Amino acid sequence: MPHALFDKHRATLDAAVNAIHERGYWAAYAETPSPGIYGESAMEDGKRAFERCLGRQFALDQPGQVAWTSSETSPYGLALGVSYPVCNAQALIDAGLEAMRGWRNIGAEGRTGICLEILERLNKHSFELAHAVMMTTGQGWMMAFQAGAPHAQDRALEAVAYAWREQSFVPAEAIWEKPQGKNPPLRMHKQFEIVGRGVALVIGCGTFPTWNTYPGLFAALATGNPVIVKPHPNAILPVAISVRIIREVLAENGIDANLVSLAAFKEDQATRELAQHRAIRSIDFTGSNAFGNWLIDHCRQAQVYAELAGVNNIVIDSTDAYKAMLRNLAFTLSLYSGQMCTTSQALFVPAAGIETDLGHKTFDDLASDLAGAIDALLGKPEVALAVLGAVQSEDTLRRIETASSGSLGKVVLGTKAIDHPEFPEARVRSPVLIACAADEPPWTQECFGPISFLVRVADTAAAIALSERVVSEHGALTAAVYSTSAEVIEAMSEATWRSKVALSINLTGAVFVNQSTAFSDYHGTGGNPAANASYADSAFVANRFRVVQRRRHL
Amino acid sequence: MPHALFDKHRATLDAAVNAIHERGYWAAYAETPSPGIYGESAMEDGKRAFERCLGRQFALDQPGQVAWTSSETSPYGLALGVSYPVCNAQALIDAGLEAMRGWRNIGAEGRTGICLEILERLNKHSFELAHAVMMTTGQGWMMAFQAGAPHAQDRALEAVAYAWREQSFVPAEAIWEKPQGKNPPLRMHKQFEIVGRGVALVIGCGTFPTWNTYPGLFAALATGNPVIVKPHPNAILPVAISVRIIREVLAENGIDANLVSLAAFKEDQATRELAQHRAIRSIDFTGSNAFGNWLIDHCRQAQVYAELAGVNNIVIDSTDAYKAMLRNLAFTLSLYSGQMCTTSQALFVPAAGIETDLGHKTFDDLASDLAGAIDALLGKPEVALAVLGAVQSEDTLRRIETASSGSLGKVVLGTKAIDHPEFPEARVRSPVLIACAADEPPWTQECFGPISFLVRVADTAAAIALSERVVSEHGALTAAVYSTSAEVIEAMSEATWRSKVALSINLTGAVFVNQSTAFSDYHGTGGNPAANASYADSAFVANRFRVVQRRRHL
Repeated sequence: MPHALFDKHRATLDAAVNAIHERGYWAAYAETPSPGIYGESAMEDGKRAFERCLGRQFALDQPGQVAWTSSETSPYGLALGVSYPVCNAQALIDAGLEAMRGWRNIGAEGRTGICLEILERLNKHSFELAHAVMMTTGQGWMMAFQAGAPHAQDRALEAVAYAWREQSFVPAEAIWEKPQGKNPPLRMHKQFEIVGRGVALVIGCGTFPTWNTYPGLFAALATGNPVIVKPHPNAILPVAISVRIIREVLAENGIDANLVSLAAFKEDQATRELAQHRAIRSIDFTGSNAFGNWLIDHCRQAQVYAELAGVNNIVIDSTDAYKAMLRNLAFTLSLYSGQMCTTSQALFVPAAGIETDLGHKTFDDLASDLAGAIDALLGKPEVALAVLGAVQSEDTLRRIETASSGSLGKVVLGTKAIDHPEFPEARVRSPVLIACAADEPPWTQECFGPISFLVRVADTAAAIALSERVVSEHGALTAAVYSTSAEVIEAMSEATWRSKVALSINLTGAVFVNQSTAFSDYHGTGGNPAANASYADSAFVANRFRVVQRRRHL
Repeated sequence: MPHALFDKHRATLDAAVNAIHERGYWAAYAETPSPGIYGESAMEDGKRAFERCLGRQFALDQPGQVAWTSSETSPYGLALGVSYPVCNAQALIDAGLEAMRGWRNIGAEGRTGICLEILERLNKHSFELAHAVMMTTGQGWMMAFQAGAPHAQDRALEAVAYAWREQSFVPAEAIWEKPQGKNPPLRMHKQFEIVGRGVALVIGCGTFPTWNTYPGLFAALATGNPVIVKPHPNAILPVAISVRIIREVLAENGIDANLVSLAAFKEDQATRELAQHRAIRSIDFTGSNAFGNWLIDHCRQAQVYAELAGVNNIVIDSTDAYKAMLRNLAFTLSLYSGQMCTTSQALFVPAAGIETDLGHKTFDDLASDLAGAIDALLGKPEVALAVLGAVQSEDTLRRIETASSGSLGKVVLGTKAIDHPEFPEARVRSPVLIACAADEPPWTQECFGPISFLVRVADTAAAIALSERVVSEHGALTAAVYSTSAEVIEAMSEATWRSKVALSINLTGAVFVNQSTAFSDYHGTGGNPAANASYADSAFVANRFRVVQRRRHL
C-alpha cells in the first residue's frame, strides 16, 4: 500500500518541502532525548537493543553471503565484538537490480511514502542508534543522539523532500496538441517514466556513520535506485541497524528487501572493486581526499558525490564581544575533539593584533586568551567528557601527539589526556593550539582532530585573501569572520562567493561554525575542493534519476 | 533596469515554466516564417543582413584579439568568406570573470529578464539566423528557419525556465528562529547568494549550430556564468550573429558585454587547451564520441554536458498502417539527409517478415517497399531539395559513397546526386539503405548521414533485446517501435526504461521519430552513452550554480 504511506506522511513531506524553500528553523524529528517525546522506556530499550547486538553475528539475510567480518574497536574501549555478513558483491548488485523494477513501478509517491515510513521507524530506534554511534565513533552521548539519530533523519528527509520536488515536477503523462491552421491539430499521448540511474553505492565514514550516510542513501533510494551501503570498518553497527530497519520496512510494504544491502569489507581492495563495477551508477562518499579522488578518477561509470577534507578557517579582524567570541571558539575547537568535517583548523589573526570591546589585543594576547577559554570550558571533567567525546582513530591520536610535541609550530596549548570514570580505556584528549606564520606549511594540510592553528597574517585584507586562496585550492566546508566593520564583512562575503564556502559572521552565542542544520543550512557548497555536492540541494538529487518518455498518436 | 525586463517578460516565463511541468504543446516563438508574424520586410531584411556579413570581417570588439580566421565552406557551394576574430583565450577568460560579478549582483530575476530580452532580440533576427544556418550547415530553408531560429530559441527558453525554477526556489534570506524551551529562542539572519560555477565553455557542432548550442549557453548564462562559445569551424556565422546580439543586449542593460564571447579557432589544439584551462568550470559539447570522451577524460576541472553519437534504432514488429508507416520512415530517413543526431540508423526486422494491414510482408518486401517510399518521397526535385538539404561535410559525403558501393552490406537503395538549380555546387545526395544480418558490425557504429540499415533479426523478442543492448552499449537518442501488439509495446517500453532512451510508438502521421519539441519532448535522457544530459531537465541546470550562505545572530 505505498500510496497509503504517502498519504500518511503527506503533512510531514509538505512541511519539509516548505522548509527547504523557506530555510527558517524546522525539524521533523525531536532532538531532545526526552521520555515525554520518545517514550518512558525508550532510553532503556535502546540501550538494551544496542547491548543485544554485542558479541554476536548481526544477521541480515542478504544474498551471496560468504563469510562474517568483525573489525570495530570502540574509542571508549568497550568490547564490541559484532560480526557482519560479507556478501559477494555481484550477488548484491544482481539482487538490487532485481528489486529495482518493483521500486520503479510504485512510482515517486510510493517511494516517497515508504522512505518517510522508514525514517519514522529509524526515529523510533533513535536511542539504539545513538548508542551504536557513540560507541563506534567516540562521540559524546548528546551528540551521538542528536547528530546520529534525529539530525541524521532530518538530513535524510531533506534529501527525500528535494527528490520529491524534482520527481513530482515530471508529469506521468501529457496530451500534446499542436494546431495545424485550418487542419485538425496533431495530437499525441506522451508518457514519462522516472527511472533510477542504477545501483547506488554509499560509502560511510568513521565519525558520522549516519549523518553523512543518510543523505546519499535516501537521495538515491527516493529516486528509484537500489543502494549498497559500505560502512567504515570501524563504524558498521549504526549502518547495519539502519539497513536492517530499512529492509524490514521495504519487505512489510511488498518491496524486495534486497533493494538496500550492507557491504561490510575489511579490505580496501574489495571496496575499490565494487566501486568500479560497471553496474554502480552513483557513489556517495565521505572521507579522505586520497580515496575520494581515487573514486572520482577511477569510477567514471558513476556519478560521484564526494565530501572530502579541507582547511576550514576563520578571519579574526575585531570584535565587540571578546569574551563571548572566545567562548564560542573554545567550544567549536573542542566539540567532539575537532573530529567534525566542519571544525575550524586555521584562525587568521593580524600580526598587529585586533581591536575589541576590552581594548587592543595582541596576537599573543589572543592566543593565550583562547587557550585560557578552552581550559575554562574543559575545567570540569564531566563537561570535558561530554564535549570532547573520545578520539575515533589511532591516526588522530598520533596527530594530536605530534602537534602537541611542538613539531608543527609553537604550542600555545598542549593536549591533556582525561580519565573517563565509566570507560577507563577511553581515548580522551583536549585540543592542541599552535601559533604559526602564514607561510608555514602544516596548517594548509587538513590535520583531522583537535588541532588548530593561529596563523599570523599581515593584516585583515591579507587574511581575507588568504582565506579565499586556501578555500579555492584546498577546500573548506566552513569559514567565519569576526569583525565590527561592515566593510570587512562585505569583503569577506565577496571572498566566500568567489571561493564558494559558507560564512558564519560574529558567532558569539549558542550557534557554532561547525554546526549545520538540516532544512536551513546548506552543508558544503559543492563549489570548492572540500565537496563536489551539498546537503542538500536540487543538484544533489536531480541527476540520480532520468526521465524516459514514450509518445504515440492519439 | 534588469527587473523591468523581468516584469516585461514575466508572462512568457510563467508560461514556459508551466509548459515544462505540463509538457503539452507550447511554443514562445512562431515557427511559421510568415510576414504576418515576423513583419512584411523580415524575409528580405534577413537575407540582406546575412549577405552583408559575406566576404568581410565580423567584428565583435572582444578583448585580446590577435588575428582573424576564416574556415567556413558552404555545403551549397556559396562563397562565404567571413572572417572572425581570434582572441587570446586567457583574455576572454579574464574578461568573462571580470563581467561575472555584475551578472551575479543583478540576481536571478535580472539575469532571467535579460536572457528573455536576448531571446526576443534573437527571434527578431530569425531570418538572418536562418540564412546563416542554411548556408553553413546545408539544411533546407524551412528546417534552417525553424530549427535554427524559433525552435532553438524555444530550447533556450526551456533551459532558462528550468534555471529560473531552481534559482527562484532558493530564498534570498531567512530568519532562523529555534525555540529554546523557557529561554528566548536562538535567532539568526541567513542570506543565500546564488553564484555561478565559473566560466562556461560551449562547443557547437556543424549541423545544428544554434539548436544544439543555445541550451547550454542559456543554461550557463541564466545561472550566473560567463560563457565562451566555441563554434564548429564550418558553422561559425550563426553563432557569431547570436553572440553579437547577446553582447548588444547585455551592454544595453549595463552588463559588461564580455560576459559572452566567441572563441573561433581553426585548430583543434586551441580548443583542447581552452577546455583544460582551470578557470573553465563547465563544458557543453555536441559532436563526436572521440572528442566528447576526450573532454570527459581530460577536463576534470569542469562539469561536462555531452551529446555524442549513438545508434538510433527502430523495432518493426507489425503494423495496421503499412503505407503510412513507410511514408513516415521515408521522411525520417531523408530529412536533412539523415544528418540529425536523432535520425534512425538501424531498423530491426524479423527474418520471417511482419504482419500488416496489407498482408504478410517478407523482410525483402519491406526493404524494397521502404526503398520505393523513399524514391516516391524524393521523386519531385523541389521536394527532394527541400527535404534533403545538402551534405554538411566531406566526411559524410565519403561515407555515403562507401555505403552506396556495397561495402557495408547489400544495397537496397543506392544514393543519387541531385542537381540544385540555384546552387550548382551544392552537395545533394539521396539516402542509402543497406540490408544486413544482426551480427554484422557496420550498423553498430554510428554512420552519420543518410545511411540506414535494415537489420535481419530472429524475431521481435530478439529485436527488442538487441535494441536494449545497442542502446546500453553504444547509446541512442531515439528509439521507435511499430507493433499492433500491446505486449510488444510494453516489452519495448520496459527495454527502453532499462536502456534509457525515448520511445516513439507507431508513428504514421506528421510526427517523426527524429523530431524533438521543446517544452514537451526531453531530447536525450542523459542515461545512455549517446548523451550524459538531457535538453532540458533540472539536472541540466541545477549544478551550474552553487548557493553560498552567510549567517549571523539577530
